[in-house]
Amino acid sequence: MRETEIIARIRNLAGKTNSSRLITGIGDDCAIYRPRPGEDLVVTTDLTIQGRHFQLDSHTAADVGHLSLARSLSDLAAMGAEPLFCLVSLALPAELSSAWLKRFYTGLLILAGKSDIALAGGDLSRFDQVVVDVMCCGRVPRGKALTRSGARPGDVIYVTGSLGASALGLETRTGHAWKRHLRPQPRLAAGIRLRRLPATAAMDLSDGLSLDLYRLCLESGVSAQLDEAIPIAKGATLELALHAGEDYELLFTASPKSRVPAWIDGLSITRIGEIKRGKPGSVRFGKHILKPLAFDHFS
Amino acid sequence: MRETEIIARIRNLAGKTNSSRLITGIGDDCAIYRPRPGEDLVVTTDLTIQGRHFQLDSHTAADVGHLSLARSLSDLAAMGAEPLFCLVSLALPAELSSAWLKRFYTGLLILAGKSDIALAGGDLSRFDQVVVDVMCCGRVPRGKALTRSGARPGDVIYVTGSLGASALGLETRTGHAWKRHLRPQPRLAAGIRLRRLPATAAMDLSDGLSLDLYRLCLESGVSAQLDEAIPIAKGATLELALHAGEDYELLFTASPKSRVPAWIDGLSITRIGEIKRGKPGSVRFGKHILKPLAFDHFS
Repeated sequence: MRETEIIARIRNLAGKTNSSRLITGIGDDCAIYRPRPGEDLVVTTDLTIQGRHFQLDSHTAADVGHLSLARSLSDLAAMGAEPLFCLVSLALPAELSSAWLKRFYTGLLILAGKSDIALAGGDLSRFDQVVVDVMCCGRVPRGKALTRSGARPGDVIYVTGSLGASALGLETRTGHAWKRHLRPQPRLAAGIRLRRLPATAAMDLSDGLSLDLYRLCLESGVSAQLDEAIPIAKGATLELALHAGEDYELLFTASPKSRVPAWIDGLSITRIGEIKRGKPGSVRFGKHILKPLAFDHFS
Repeated sequence: MRETEIIARIRNLAGKTNSSRLITGIGDDCAIYRPRPGEDLVVTTDLTIQGRHFQLDSHTAADVGHLSLARSLSDLAAMGAEPLFCLVSLALPAELSSAWLKRFYTGLLILAGKSDIALAGGDLSRFDQVVVDVMCCGRVPRGKALTRSGARPGDVIYVTGSLGASALGLETRTGHAWKRHLRPQPRLAAGIRLRRLPATAAMDLSDGLSLDLYRLCLESGVSAQLDEAIPIAKGATLELALHAGEDYELLFTASPKSRVPAWIDGLSITRIGEIKRGKPGSVRFGKHILKPLAFDHFS
């Protein structure tokens, strides 16, 4: 199949752009977006790579499409943003059939539809392995994006849902945990709710609580005290909940004066600790220093 | 080196964001951009892949950095946009030193500085080959972006500069042509000038004149008649000028009533044909049909 035909098919699958603000979608040199007055735009990009983030023998094409978009959408959730549009870059081997390609885009577009994000363009290339890069753009009211840098001493630390399920799934390859690993759900509705609360800082847990909380504390110039109430996913261990990645739950902080609900969008909200003055990035779990042992892409 | 340290170094190299409108750059889940009133945003993304777009034995790290950004900036040029910010996703093997990484970003950031575009974020991953994906965002006054779909029968077809140099350079690996291949220059100033002219349609020549003009005609629902005045780069052949890619010159159309200058930003402007009614996408060169033989990423 020629590139022109493939792009025509993707354009057809993507359908009409879902926003009157997206003036031009797939098919030109660039997509064109007309901003609304009073909005800030947030943009992020995430690589999803064969052998690193997924395997062709365990992940279907639709799983790969879902995962690639979910990883990037999760960053929009962490900023409290409403999704607008995405660009999808895909490199793939000639051995993969056009049916694989179609199922990849179908998996991606089902999540896009649920998340109300338009596929506005991207790039295609042949390569000997599958590499995907998804850029997502979202909107927040001016000045209202949730960042990693807003946590202040005295703020309470919370997490959505439970931790360790994705890593457990990768070990057991079965049941609910495996599904959590294959099809992570970006916490978009929760992110928007946290932005309105407002939370003081937020980020998504992609690399594991110990490393991600370290990063949040570093950006905010604060330290943290975790208590022992970490919500561990059913069947997982404390070790996985503290150090394993890819749960895509939201980690956030809020003023002790904020009324944080026990549930948001069907997700339990658990208080896991408190922001403290002290060495930026330092995190204590009970009486001990918690080292950022979680997943490092370059270690 | 750990990811956190690498990101700190890139952040340092990238310096402060070059725009007061880029509220948050590298270091959070997303970058934050505050649009100006009356502007449209244009966004594009381009993959640059080892073994496909460059080789590690012929391209320095700085060449790869330059090329990755140039390919994406060229799409902004084609829309007549002013660059705002970019996101850079980079997958690379552990064998490549941190010096390679630094030179990659240095090469990319020199072009970014010249092009007045801020490095706002990105993603990093280990992989067994180098894969880069660069998303660029630019701005145009509301409704003024140059698209592929605006060409009308009677419009004159033009091209900036000369064609075939990049492909000649790839063959000869020497002199000016090789430099053109290694370090293509996005025609940003020319694109902005064409937007103000205004041109009726524009695109960048990344895959070769025959395929790219076919695409422009298809999007505009028109056909084209090329005359024999194609500007061939010194030492190149008509064949290369018609069918070889990666010159990154601009192809554009303008009303016969428009006063198109002979030079724009130091580049010669050559009239190469005329837009006609007829089968959409059909291109004639002299008396013959010109098949879109140029580079197809999936053929």
